[in-house]
Amino acid sequence: MRLSTGFVRSARYDDKVRRILFALLRDKVPDDEILRAAAEFNRKVFEMIREKGIEKRDVIRIVCEFDIRDGKIIWKWDTLTIEHYEEAQEVGSKMSALLSQIEEQEKLLETFFEKLTNIADRIRDIASEIDSMISDLKRKRELAIS
Amino acid sequence: MRLSTGFVRSARYDDKVRRILFALLRDKVPDDEILRAAAEFNRKVFEMIREKGIEKRDVIRIVCEFDIRDGKIIWKWDTLTIEHYEEAQEVGSKMSALLSQIEEQEKLLETFFEKLTNIADRIRDIASEIDSMISDLKRKRELAIS
Amino acid sequence: MRLSTGFVRSARYDDKVRRILFALLRDKVPDDEILRAAAEFNRKVFEMIREKGIEKRDVIRIVCEFDIRDGKIIWKWDTLTIEHYEEAQEVGSKMSALLSQIEEQEKLLETFFEKLTNIADRIRDIASEIDSMISDLKRKRELAIS
Amino acid sequence: MRLSTGFVRSARYDDKVRRILFALLRDKVPDDEILRAAAEFNRKVFEMIREKGIEKRDVIRIVCEFDIRDGKIIWKWDTLTIEHYEEAQEVGSKMSALLSQIEEQEKLLETFFEKLTNIADRIRDIASEIDSMISDLKRKRELAIS
Repeated sequence: MRLSTGFVRSARYDDKVRRILFALLRDKVPDDEILRAAAEFNRKVFEMIREKGIEKRDVIRIVCEFDIRDGKIIWKWDTLTIEHYEEAQEVGSKMSALLSQIEEQEKLLETFFEKLTNIADRIRDIASEIDSMISDLKRKRELAIS
Repeated sequence: MRLSTGFVRSARYDDKVRRILFALLRDKVPDDEILRAAAEFNRKVFEMIREKGIEKRDVIRIVCEFDIRDGKIIWKWDTLTIEHYEEAQEVGSKMSALLSQIEEQEKLLETFFEKLTNIADRIRDIASEIDSMISDLKRKRELAIS
Repeated sequence: MRLSTGFVRSARYDDKVRRILFALLRDKVPDDEILRAAAEFNRKVFEMIREKGIEKRDVIRIVCEFDIRDGKIIWKWDTLTIEHYEEAQEVGSKMSALLSQIEEQEKLLETFFEKLTNIADRIRDIASEIDSMISDLKRKRELAIS
Repeated sequence: MRLSTGFVRSARYDDKVRRILFALLRDKVPDDEILRAAAEFNRKVFEMIREKGIEKRDVIRIVCEFDIRDGKIIWKWDTLTIEHYEEAQEVGSKMSALLSQIEEQEKLLETFFEKLTNIADRIRDIASEIDSMISDLKRKRELAIS
């Protein structure tokens, strides 16, 4: 199998790696193994990023293949590649600007999901309210008799 | 056709007549004709109740046949009967007690219906909220681009 | 404390007793003790009804006092009274007719409560649907990146 | 005021222009004037794109200032600029790849919004169902009396 982060700002690659691994493997591998493999991967990438002198605002794309054996995620390190687009260069600065568009919209979407989760909760509250209104009325109807 | 109030406390027959007429005829006769016929009927019964010296707490049952002709409700006054159960008599007092059970439960039910109507309104509000969250997000997503 | 069934058709007193006991004592006495005490009470009343030759369609009203001691319901049998209104007598037949009104409306109400409980379930389903739509979208968004 | 499309694939600039104008001006300018101004703008840009030989898959960013006078949108054509990133060039091909990420996610979001609008409709249906259950029950309760 293959992990690709897509284009992502270097400062946020670790969160992206974790989320993509969960999206890919949630149903196949236990959560703590996913967390372990993500941490292992992110440590390795962190060192490479430091060595290469990649800036936080630079855009990167990381690709790496992996196997799953006995419920374990085994990284194939020889396939690991990090594309790098420096902000200081034209291509890097343009991709960074385009990424800012995406990031702005992701933030809006996060707020939207929070509101929507809150709405789902309110709907559930209304369902419970109907249930307890019914049992409350039934009870009061019995007690109304003298 | 035939109107029967069921057993009802004499003080509340007029409201009962109106509600039963609406339940029977809403789809067949215009609302204002129903209101007119109910008023006509209730005036007639009111006089009879006074003449007979029926007390407010006494239980009565009113039955009367009627025709609908050219969208008009025509009472067949010769079929009008008012059963009367005096509170002062055993049967009247027992029925009055039983009617109190019913009245108590009707009150509970009215409150219940009000709450439930309020819940329907809140559900509708949530639907509108979802709609405006969507159009709001769409708008903000467009404006997020610089 | 005091149990009163209100006016009730003799064929249905046992269900009524159980429901009223639950309405009165649910928060004070464990469910199985309520069930035990109701069964004990209903056996006793059943015998009395047979002895008195009360017909199923006759209207009755049962009243009895009780104590709660150490979480147990103790019936005070000397306070037990059963009022009896024979269908064959005027008062009994009238009360029976009035009770039929109530019974008809109870049936409508039962159907209504079932529908409403079903609506509460559907509302809950919608809330779950929103939740899983959100997590589904989040997952697909991660996987959309190549 | 200022219109900026953000980075967008050249084949889709016209829809983008229309949506951004609506997001900016819905509350200030009548809908048909927005549509007119968008059409005018898009015609002008269409010609420039043809003249410049911009390919459909190329990424562009269009910026233009405008005034609103007497409810009319007046384009300041001398401020119109079209940035152009050719797919055939490195920067163009990278931005195109990043834009594909965005486009994939937009499609997912569109489907999501449709489902959510459908959910809002179902919620409204439930509210109406509650209302009509109540009026139906009230009516049947009146008619249950004989």
